[in-house]
Amino acid sequence: MIAARLAAPVVLACDPGCSVLRDGVVDVDEAGRIAWVGPRAAAPPSDAPVRELAGALLPGLVNTHCHTPMVVLRGLGGDLPLMRWLQEVVWPAEARLTAEDVRAGMAAGCVELLSTGCTTSVEMYFFTDAVIDAVLAVGSRVLLTPGIIAVPGWDRLGRWEQMRDDVSARIDAVGLRSGPGERVELGYGPHAAYTLPPEALASVAGHAGERGALVHLHLAETVEEDAGHGSVPALLERLGVLGGRVLAAHGVHLSDEDVALLAARDVAVAHCPGSNAKLAAGVARVTALRRAGVRVGLGTDGPASCDDLDLWAQARLAGLLARATSRDAAALTAAELLLLATRDGAAAIGRDDLGALEPGRWADLVHVRLDDPAFVDPADDAQLLSNLVWAAGARCVEDVWVAGKQVLAGGEPTRVDRAATTAGLRAVAARLRS
Amino acid sequence: MIAARLAAPVVLACDPGCSVLRDGVVDVDEAGRIAWVGPRAAAPPSDAPVRELAGALLPGLVNTHCHTPMVVLRGLGGDLPLMRWLQEVVWPAEARLTAEDVRAGMAAGCVELLSTGCTTSVEMYFFTDAVIDAVLAVGSRVLLTPGIIAVPGWDRLGRWEQMRDDVSARIDAVGLRSGPGERVELGYGPHAAYTLPPEALASVAGHAGERGALVHLHLAETVEEDAGHGSVPALLERLGVLGGRVLAAHGVHLSDEDVALLAARDVAVAHCPGSNAKLAAGVARVTALRRAGVRVGLGTDGPASCDDLDLWAQARLAGLLARATSRDAAALTAAELLLLATRDGAAAIGRDDLGALEPGRWADLVHVRLDDPAFVDPADDAQLLSNLVWAAGARCVEDVWVAGKQVLAGGEPTRVDRAATTAGLRAVAARLRS
Repeated sequence: MIAARLAAPVVLACDPGCSVLRDGVVDVDEAGRIAWVGPRAAAPPSDAPVRELAGALLPGLVNTHCHTPMVVLRGLGGDLPLMRWLQEVVWPAEARLTAEDVRAGMAAGCVELLSTGCTTSVEMYFFTDAVIDAVLAVGSRVLLTPGIIAVPGWDRLGRWEQMRDDVSARIDAVGLRSGPGERVELGYGPHAAYTLPPEALASVAGHAGERGALVHLHLAETVEEDAGHGSVPALLERLGVLGGRVLAAHGVHLSDEDVALLAARDVAVAHCPGSNAKLAAGVARVTALRRAGVRVGLGTDGPASCDDLDLWAQARLAGLLARATSRDAAALTAAELLLLATRDGAAAIGRDDLGALEPGRWADLVHVRLDDPAFVDPADDAQLLSNLVWAAGARCVEDVWVAGKQVLAGGEPTRVDRAATTAGLRAVAARLRS
Repeated sequence: MIAARLAAPVVLACDPGCSVLRDGVVDVDEAGRIAWVGPRAAAPPSDAPVRELAGALLPGLVNTHCHTPMVVLRGLGGDLPLMRWLQEVVWPAEARLTAEDVRAGMAAGCVELLSTGCTTSVEMYFFTDAVIDAVLAVGSRVLLTPGIIAVPGWDRLGRWEQMRDDVSARIDAVGLRSGPGERVELGYGPHAAYTLPPEALASVAGHAGERGALVHLHLAETVEEDAGHGSVPALLERLGVLGGRVLAAHGVHLSDEDVALLAARDVAVAHCPGSNAKLAAGVARVTALRRAGVRVGLGTDGPASCDDLDLWAQARLAGLLARATSRDAAALTAAELLLLATRDGAAAIGRDDLGALEPGRWADLVHVRLDDPAFVDPADDAQLLSNLVWAAGARCVEDVWVAGKQVLAGGEPTRVDRAATTAGLRAVAARLRS
């Protein structure tokens, strides 16, 4: 049963070939999933209301690594390297955050994500109820992997065993996915090999494996972090962590053997070029990872290191860095970058029900204005894709739907007031400064 | 005589220390120059009307290397390296451009520049009258260095001697600077050492030296271009090109000796990180250049290689690349990046009457909204600068003045219609495709 039909002069379904469909239609069923996609002339008969759009319709972007509530810390300690920045600025500030602060940050951040066309984010944070509440209120989709960590200071939130058990209990109670449109998925967020003892990494992976849940951790972000361990991927393999659904954020400092191991164990990588560059961690070998068959998605990382949550900017940066470091001007094409931000991101987090416009996938949709001068020749397929990725991006995002429900209209969130979420954000930031 | 007073809760004068002035005032005289800047409480008595602004006031950005009319080619051949892209795609397309096409591209491009807060661009292009007409119509400021080139195909525009003499005759007729608010400065654009014979480079530099005009050329953009020459800076020095006002675009492939030579001869560099990365040319050694005392500004390059003309994005990218390649997270701070885009850019093009809010400089001003959630704590100076540069940027540009005249109001150009300039741009692009 078709509940709504969206018609647009351009539909970018983000199929593997990244084709450009002209005068297309996307049908959405009553559950909020895509029922049909194709040319208007071939659309099945339907009495559903038709929404005529003037621009391009594409799947919502998938941000594969984020700590969105950190938007309240945006700009703090912006000129420090990773370890000093974490230990001297971020962790002390985070120690002062309440659940209500995290809710305020997550709400403002979700508005920012939707406004830039990102419908799904993979989150690692604490105060799980607050994060979920904000996501449900704003209308976005989350794969939430509550942080599990064992370093001095963080024990205020409990021991790692409690953090692990809290996630397991939640999954056992409500299932892996829950909420309207299954907009909340739970997973495990063991922070990193340098912030957890080996037995914790193994145990968390065991809990996740029993439940088919994602294990989301930081891996090989800086040169320093594997001091004493040797290869961190090899350590994780010995601990049995790499057997299930694993998403490794960063993957900057990986040897050829590490890359081969990640490929062999089908571990996905969340590539966060902006955060890695800003914190002077380095540049991940994205083309080598992709060539080896590793699933790669894009992430902004938290807005305290990658200052805005615009995944289009990360796609561009991924392309620029890949070209600059490889000296190959075709290292990542516009089409490949669009797929990285959508279809590939969904695949990287093990969600083949997101990231493309195909029957059965969730109707997470973005409508992009084409009247912007970024688009100099919208009738030409190659130029349209190039202009979308390299010049237009976030500023042209006009409308967004998640599971078929419109959550952004004319650039403004439909379920919350942007001024109110901004005020909430600023109240937290002002208190942190005082 | 004060003609107008602008008052704003935040004034960023872009003084060398990049200070943040609260509750500030900028007075503009009848000629369109800045008469006074300081705290409102200390402002001189005046009957001039006061314009109360809600955001931050800063100097207009200076784009030190651009070929703005190429906006009509945006997205063409986006996956080719520099030399193939020039020879197979760009030059053949440019051969078909008429003066009217260049006027249409320049007008649309100037709207884009103003909309992102850039008031001055250094341009190298052809059809000089068309470029100047467009700048005067839209209201921006230009330092126009008509291209001088001697390669097959370009002889349709004349020999290099004619191109040189055309610039000299114009300067001799109207002076180095002309137009309302002296909004047009002329200089010489000898394309590069690989596209002109040695005697042309020497002769053009001689004409420029006699007139105190800028020499603007491409230098050390790719590894390939110095094949057979050895060091291109050393060649230019032998030819006597480096004695006057010289602005070298790119400067990617420079040895330590080259850097020392540029510093010794006070040659400025227009750093174009986006274009260099996208065309896989490499990453310029910006921190080394700055450490050696070379004046460095930022450039977008033409919108066919750096797809949008947003100089904020180039500032961010300059910072990210400097940090990623140096492994130093303080390589370029937010304040240094803001100055690169304003004061330093003006200094790089030899214009100490632009790029900062100081008495005597032109009143080229940008008003940035502070109600955007990018600004999480506008009351904190460091966070304000960080948020402006790393998160807000172009999307928060609200109003722009050039020589005291408002040319952008509420994000829209005041002197031309954006829809009309976009339509003009698209008509050219569509014809090029056909």
